[in-house]
Amino acid sequence: MTTEIDRRLVGWLEDAYAMEQEAETMLKAMASRIKHYPAFQQRIEQHVSETQQQMQNLEQCLQELDASKPTAKAAIGSAMATVHAMGNAMMDDEVAKGVGIAYAFEQMEVASYRALIIAARRAERPRIAAICEQILGEEQAMVDWLFEQQPALIDQFLNREWADLEAKR
Amino acid sequence: MTTEIDRRLVGWLEDAYAMEQEAETMLKAMASRIKHYPAFQQRIEQHVSETQQQMQNLEQCLQELDASKPTAKAAIGSAMATVHAMGNAMMDDEVAKGVGIAYAFEQMEVASYRALIIAARRAERPRIAAICEQILGEEQAMVDWLFEQQPALIDQFLNREWADLEAKR
Repeated sequence: MTTEIDRRLVGWLEDAYAMEQEAETMLKAMASRIKHYPAFQQRIEQHVSETQQQMQNLEQCLQELDASKPTAKAAIGSAMATVHAMGNAMMDDEVAKGVGIAYAFEQMEVASYRALIIAARRAERPRIAAICEQILGEEQAMVDWLFEQQPALIDQFLNREWADLEAKR
Repeated sequence: MTTEIDRRLVGWLEDAYAMEQEAETMLKAMASRIKHYPAFQQRIEQHVSETQQQMQNLEQCLQELDASKPTAKAAIGSAMATVHAMGNAMMDDEVAKGVGIAYAFEQMEVASYRALIIAARRAERPRIAAICEQILGEEQAMVDWLFEQQPALIDQFLNREWADLEAKR
């Protein structure tokens, strides 16, 4: 039996899956380019792995609700992420913008999982709520890292620019 | 005399101006539609006023650096914001998505002003740093409000949906 709240939950899980696919594309493109910022690169790569695991966990949630793995929306998300990454690559302050964009994107994920947890609890789906809580913790850790590291990254960027070194990535 | 750090500062102030124009368009569209969520609507409207004042303050900063008011970039930003707002309007969970999108957008603003403050201090432009600090405070207050209110908004949305009332806005 599929209830209305289950249908809403399926919709939001599918949206989260598309969002993680977009995150994966964007973060991979970013990590492959920011060669002068190794700590940032390493943390981004770690989060790419977390993102891939999160997508598998979201698939499990969708299976519990007898919904299939989403495809169409995700393809659109991924195309948009590629466009974003290309746009960033053309900026002369790519790494400075990139850290802000990644931070905002991760905060959107935080908001999405907070909403999902409320819906999962209302649908009396404790396993799904628990999975979303775990993912939320990972997103929050990424947000906190980016917030803490941003000032140092901006300083490094301005130092490199001032010294006429390649700064943008 | 325009130094390299001044040029960077001008670039980031112009980006911030374009971002605020996009925010204004997006928030106005949102406020005009979420009629069943009066507290949310009211806070968004308050932030539209703040955003308009922020744009004037950014213009002052650009004048101090002998840069003119930006136009072209801003027009692109505004067009994108309209597309975003139209995309949101087609969603059957407009208000639930809207609060997440507004939250992420405001967080991008937070990251941008944090970077601007660092650049303004390096450029020894204390008035510009002070203006950006004041704007940062307003963005942070908006972020905090959205974060605190989101769970109640999601609950309200799901209650309305469950009761077969118009929920999306």
